[in-house]
Amino acid sequence: MDNGEIPEDANEHCPGPQSESAGKSDACEGCPNQEVCATAPKGPDPDIVAIVERMATVKHKILVLSGKGGVGKSTFSAQLAFALAAKDFQVGLLDIDICGPSIPKMLGLEGQEIHQSNLGWSPVYVESNLGVMSIGFMLPNPDDAVIWRGPRKNGIIKQFLKDVYWGELDFLVVDAPPGTSDEHISIVQFLQETGIDGAIIVTTPQQVSLIDVRKEVSFCKKVGLQVLGVVENMSGLSQPLLDFKFLKVTETGEEKNVTEWAMQYMREKAPELLDLVGFTEVFDSSGGGAAKMCSDMGVPFLGKVPLDPRLCKAAEEGRSCFDDTKCGLSAAALKRIIDKLVASETFSTSSIQNGV
Amino acid sequence: MDNGEIPEDANEHCPGPQSESAGKSDACEGCPNQEVCATAPKGPDPDIVAIVERMATVKHKILVLSGKGGVGKSTFSAQLAFALAAKDFQVGLLDIDICGPSIPKMLGLEGQEIHQSNLGWSPVYVESNLGVMSIGFMLPNPDDAVIWRGPRKNGIIKQFLKDVYWGELDFLVVDAPPGTSDEHISIVQFLQETGIDGAIIVTTPQQVSLIDVRKEVSFCKKVGLQVLGVVENMSGLSQPLLDFKFLKVTETGEEKNVTEWAMQYMREKAPELLDLVGFTEVFDSSGGGAAKMCSDMGVPFLGKVPLDPRLCKAAEEGRSCFDDTKCGLSAAALKRIIDKLVASETFSTSSIQNGV
Repeated sequence: MDNGEIPEDANEHCPGPQSESAGKSDACEGCPNQEVCATAPKGPDPDIVAIVERMATVKHKILVLSGKGGVGKSTFSAQLAFALAAKDFQVGLLDIDICGPSIPKMLGLEGQEIHQSNLGWSPVYVESNLGVMSIGFMLPNPDDAVIWRGPRKNGIIKQFLKDVYWGELDFLVVDAPPGTSDEHISIVQFLQETGIDGAIIVTTPQQVSLIDVRKEVSFCKKVGLQVLGVVENMSGLSQPLLDFKFLKVTETGEEKNVTEWAMQYMREKAPELLDLVGFTEVFDSSGGGAAKMCSDMGVPFLGKVPLDPRLCKAAEEGRSCFDDTKCGLSAAALKRIIDKLVASETFSTSSIQNGV
Repeated sequence: MDNGEIPEDANEHCPGPQSESAGKSDACEGCPNQEVCATAPKGPDPDIVAIVERMATVKHKILVLSGKGGVGKSTFSAQLAFALAAKDFQVGLLDIDICGPSIPKMLGLEGQEIHQSNLGWSPVYVESNLGVMSIGFMLPNPDDAVIWRGPRKNGIIKQFLKDVYWGELDFLVVDAPPGTSDEHISIVQFLQETGIDGAIIVTTPQQVSLIDVRKEVSFCKKVGLQVLGVVENMSGLSQPLLDFKFLKVTETGEEKNVTEWAMQYMREKAPELLDLVGFTEVFDSSGGGAAKMCSDMGVPFLGKVPLDPRLCKAAEEGRSCFDDTKCGLSAAALKRIIDKLVASETFSTSSIQNGV
């Protein structure tokens, strides 16, 4: 990835179109790009130059990644952005999930549109210090599918980096789709020159999710991206017992809602239960969960966040979970993780600001 | 998509390399493939011919799709395969999630390898009538990331369709990654000529997931793929009260595990609680959930499956949830959905076997 963007249909050992041997190496034999590469002018990609200029006003860049989807990555990105903004930082949140953008909804910005000025595309602002950019703001109809192959997705990501006018930012949080494919290769490649502080990886305690997180850590190592830490999300479900419904399964297998009766029965017979929180693991974490995986792979473990229906609701409604006390358990867990992150060496030492 | 595979770096209105105007149309101006296209021999893609031949022994092809990841799509695909095999059908399960293959683990086949014979690549068999193919079987180290851009992913999907020797199959279930990008465009394009029965779309009741499912339905309509129906997964969490842990939150915000005390207290004071099932919605479904979305978009709703920690455990352990009675509620819900599906017109009428 040192020699410019490699064409999508390039041969396997493509030296890169910026290489001196572009179009002339043995590996170029039979490549459809051979002639273009051999004759193209060499030198730095002008788009990368434009991205470096644009990013000069951004102090810290954090990628939020996950191996599997649906682990709460976008919820984490959204709440991280809310939390940093609440600390009076200037924050930008960039959604590079092109086929399934969730960020507009999670920031309460559905139906908003981006505007163009002579400085570039303007993000959509939640507050004056929290701007958001997503392809979700560009779709005429929210039901429309963005049926794009890799190269077009890479093109729009490049445009987001090149053409969005963020102004002075303390933090740019980039929410990536799950996996290790086009969007991930591209964002690293495009931002490489500008310095990326590192990546936060979100997972659930399930083995299937952890298997994919290991791949994500391997990806980070391979492309030279520091893993700032791993967050174990949906780490068991915690909910006040009062918020549960109670069902009775009849002999024929039917479920009967007996919540009202159960509440009355508890109030009369066992009132001390009413103050308790019910907890269930949901996902089997007998394999040791993310903490063990982190110690195996030598990356920092940032902490656990329970699966909290109230946090899910805040995310669905595009609200910060820190604004009131409703998301008690999950908000406290998130806050601990984010405080730990902000206090970490990466962000307190300005000297490594531009190091990958 | 009627004129052969369009190159990844093609111009926007590419007529396709098999078109008579390939390389000669106005849209070809400046395209890096212009010369190759203009001079290439025209005619049907030989790979598509090979796929049609290979698929001649496969009666029904079902795609399992989701808009968002982590909604339990692979769990559904795995249990669908188990259920069809238990009905004595010949079943193949093809995992086209290249960057995050979960199927080997979910079928209990981790660490297995595929073998090559003179008939082609042999699937890995769970039982004699349930064969599985996944890139997961081809990775030397399970932690390795498959960092592939679109074209390479499309290449391996083509190979799976062309080179795997399934033998006579009643059902080929294809588990796709989330979204509407390379893998999805490719699988439809590659299988189009052979006839695809349709797609099952898995979602959760959350708005963020339903937004993406609408995109998935739009995708199906656009590429002419029948939506066999939508499954609402993780539709609330149901668990016997006995399986919960109970926490007390102290005044300082700490959680104290008081499960043993709570169980004893219930047994003494309120024993009737012990037979109940605790239920919580988990994800806010106040928007009407998948059922409403289906009626809005005119596609069949197949039913709801609760988030059942015991089903999660079965999936993690690569077991069928139908083998014993442990996954009571979720297995019953899945069984109703699968029975409905198999009894549907699509599969009972052989006449439409080859129609898309």
